[in-house]
Amino acid sequence: QLREMLTEFHYADIAEIVNDLEIEEATYLIKQLDSEKTSDALTELDEDVREAILGNLSPKEIAVELEELDTDDAADIIGELPKSIVQEVISEIDDREHAKDIVDLLRYDESTAGGLMAKELVKVNENWNVLTCVKEMRIQAENVTRVHSIYVVDDEDKLKGRLSLKDLLTTSTRANIRDVYINKVDSVNVNEKPEEVAKIMSKYDLEAIPVVDEIGRLVGRITIDDIVDVIREEADKDYQMAAGISQDVDSDDSIWELTRARLPWLILGLFGGAAAAVIMGGFEEMFKAYTILFLFTPLIAAMAGNVGVQSSAIIVQGLANDDIKGSISNRLIKEMLLALLNGFILSILLLLFTWLWKGDLMTSIAISISLIAVIVVAGFIGTFVPLFLDKRGIDPAIATGPFITTSNDIFGILIYFSIAKLILGL
Amino acid sequence: QLREMLTEFHYADIAEIVNDLEIEEATYLIKQLDSEKTSDALTELDEDVREAILGNLSPKEIAVELEELDTDDAADIIGELPKSIVQEVISEIDDREHAKDIVDLLRYDESTAGGLMAKELVKVNENWNVLTCVKEMRIQAENVTRVHSIYVVDDEDKLKGRLSLKDLLTTSTRANIRDVYINKVDSVNVNEKPEEVAKIMSKYDLEAIPVVDEIGRLVGRITIDDIVDVIREEADKDYQMAAGISQDVDSDDSIWELTRARLPWLILGLFGGAAAAVIMGGFEEMFKAYTILFLFTPLIAAMAGNVGVQSSAIIVQGLANDDIKGSISNRLIKEMLLALLNGFILSILLLLFTWLWKGDLMTSIAISISLIAVIVVAGFIGTFVPLFLDKRGIDPAIATGPFITTSNDIFGILIYFSIAKLILGL
Ligand SMILES: [Mg+2]
Ligand SMILES: [Mg+2]
Ligand SMILES: [Mg+2]
Ligand SMILES: [Mg+2]
Ligand SMILES: [Mg+2]
Ligand SMILES: [Mg+2]
Ligand SMILES: [Mg+2]
Ligand SMILES: [Mg+2]
Ligand SMILES: [Mg+2]
Ligand SMILES: [Mg+2]
Ligand SMILES: [Mg+2]
Ligand SMILES: [Mg+2]
Ligand SMILES: [Mg+2]
Repeated sequence: QLREMLTEFHYADIAEIVNDLEIEEATYLIKQLDSEKTSDALTELDEDVREAILGNLSPKEIAVELEELDTDDAADIIGELPKSIVQEVISEIDDREHAKDIVDLLRYDESTAGGLMAKELVKVNENWNVLTCVKEMRIQAENVTRVHSIYVVDDEDKLKGRLSLKDLLTTSTRANIRDVYINKVDSVNVNEKPEEVAKIMSKYDLEAIPVVDEIGRLVGRITIDDIVDVIREEADKDYQMAAGISQDVDSDDSIWELTRARLPWLILGLFGGAAAAVIMGGFEEMFKAYTILFLFTPLIAAMAGNVGVQSSAIIVQGLANDDIKGSISNRLIKEMLLALLNGFILSILLLLFTWLWKGDLMTSIAISISLIAVIVVAGFIGTFVPLFLDKRGIDPAIATGPFITTSNDIFGILIYFSIAKLILGL
Repeated sequence: QLREMLTEFHYADIAEIVNDLEIEEATYLIKQLDSEKTSDALTELDEDVREAILGNLSPKEIAVELEELDTDDAADIIGELPKSIVQEVISEIDDREHAKDIVDLLRYDESTAGGLMAKELVKVNENWNVLTCVKEMRIQAENVTRVHSIYVVDDEDKLKGRLSLKDLLTTSTRANIRDVYINKVDSVNVNEKPEEVAKIMSKYDLEAIPVVDEIGRLVGRITIDDIVDVIREEADKDYQMAAGISQDVDSDDSIWELTRARLPWLILGLFGGAAAAVIMGGFEEMFKAYTILFLFTPLIAAMAGNVGVQSSAIIVQGLANDDIKGSISNRLIKEMLLALLNGFILSILLLLFTWLWKGDLMTSIAISISLIAVIVVAGFIGTFVPLFLDKRGIDPAIATGPFITTSNDIFGILIYFSIAKLILGL
């Protein structure tokens, strides 16, 4: 009855159940289920669970699962298998066409359009007539869950356009495809970055997009469900990076995994804090006369960090959405003005507080003016660093979070004490 | 020739061009273009640009644009119009069925499934036979760009299931729909949150999902392109919130808008900094004997902030992805252990640094032990606050960023000085 119950479930729900089972139970369950649902559930499992389950299956059993999957999912699973059994697994796949397609896909880097695409698509030759085309389509469509579009290629397999099902059905069967197809079709290059593909598909509201190689040949197709996963993973990764967590952990990972992801950024923060301590040590002679200055170092560090994070987040997001137009210097000038405005308002508030608290107007003014300078510089660093990283081809997302807060702590404190010293004439 | 050139472009590209034009030029361009492309471009414009352009159009002209749009997009645009002209615009829509559907959609809150759905869908009655069904479908499908699924309803319009096109074509035309439909179909309630709809559609790889009202009647359909937009906007919003920016600004907004979004969080930081200053003021008598303690306040504040942000980010993301299983206390214990491990490693590093730098072992130990305590408490706050907010129905995303760094600065400094004082026996 377990079996019957499970056939009622969607594979995504089964994957969730299996994720929470012991590996033996999980393997048992996967073996019990009918094969298509098993295979689909496999692709939805957490990577470590999948690895463990596949470790309990023979190459033949794995091949049977792969046979049921679309080529993109099958290739992803093979990519995770130990190198030593890959060849055996592939040779056990009965459908040789399917095996060939999977092997083709193995050559593409996971972080390209090629790594996302599947071989399942429907294509017709521009030189065929409608009748041939309909016959061929029937055969091809058997392996394709959702057709979306019919792609038109020439004799060299180069993508020429697409065909709407409606046009096909309303045209004479003698007509040539050449005369009825739409010679405009969005496509992406096989080396395109997944984020770029996501941008194109979401901009043009596409449900599938054909992928072409360097000379324009149709090599595969990417569907929106996989792009939705890309968008979510990318957003999760950027969020974690901004929070100082190296990518790819979730709340259920082990303490060791979480430590590995979090400790490096904390050590960076420790170094920053040590540097700040050394800098403050250089101003030690000011301690007796102007103790109050030291009481505000956490405030200065916090403001420098917050402004830096705000500025960099706006820039990082603008870069990700291709929203950043105009020159870098305009961008920096705008951020400086913004920081000046914010800094001015905040300084007035701080001036009032300090003056009322300690009654020392001169020192209060010195602290407030330093705060403006700190905020402007923090805004500058927060804007400049991601733009600079992006220009150098480094993911600017790394600039929001611990990296910027740490450097802004250091610069902020240095600027604060230097300016205060200058103003108070020490 | 401008006109010809523009008919070649995709509406999403036209929207990008129009966004960068002066409003007069933009209005001119929109009026020049053939109507369907204009309308679609309108929906893709920035909100402020659209508002300005629509302000230059007469109610009749607006109605003509709305006529070309799907009901969901039309309703969204009407929702942005000044209340005074809404009625006139609607009365100018020639297609009264379309107008009725739009008015229906106006009743739903933008932040529900109802606010996302369109009225365009294909539905058939379970009591029809296949022949009637095919005829009806032909009529309905005219207004629907992509059919995806055919929904089956009963006489009361309640959603019963769906029909695959394939089954329909391979069954006798005399057969009753009742006997051929699939009585399992994912659907969402009209009051469901957009994020929840996004989760369901991405989990089950759906391209469209039917929406039902409180008594199960089919009232609309949500398509994946709109959900892709929801996912991206939601991710942008969370990212900005974590960076201390109130939602809904982008890098091209005015300095005033950016200030309004950023200043509140900076003022919060300022209050936090002032509180920290007051706390440190309470430990002023320690200044002369233990100056070194004060040099490390930025380090302590930074570590408290970083650990807090890391912990809260993991929890916020886990909550968003429904990954958080098990009890709160288990979660807290795990985070404490993790913080203890990280804190221990970091304290050893700090101990070595302080000892080598100042040569005062006792003070160095005091600082290091305080650091462990600070990190554990920071981890606790970072874990507890988002879980608590979530339990109270508040968006936990607010807990990552300035909120947690500010409170952790204060607690961190308080704990640091208290423990150091205790250990050094002051
Ligand atoms: Mg099986
Ligand atoms: Mg792949
Ligand atoms: Mg879109
Ligand atoms: Mg796929
Ligand atoms: Mg999938
Ligand atoms: Mg990224
Ligand atoms: Mg900080
Ligand atoms: Mg027009
Ligand atoms: Mg709406
Ligand atoms: Mg999915
Ligand atoms: Mg829509
Ligand atoms: Mg759209
Ligand atoms: Mg959210």
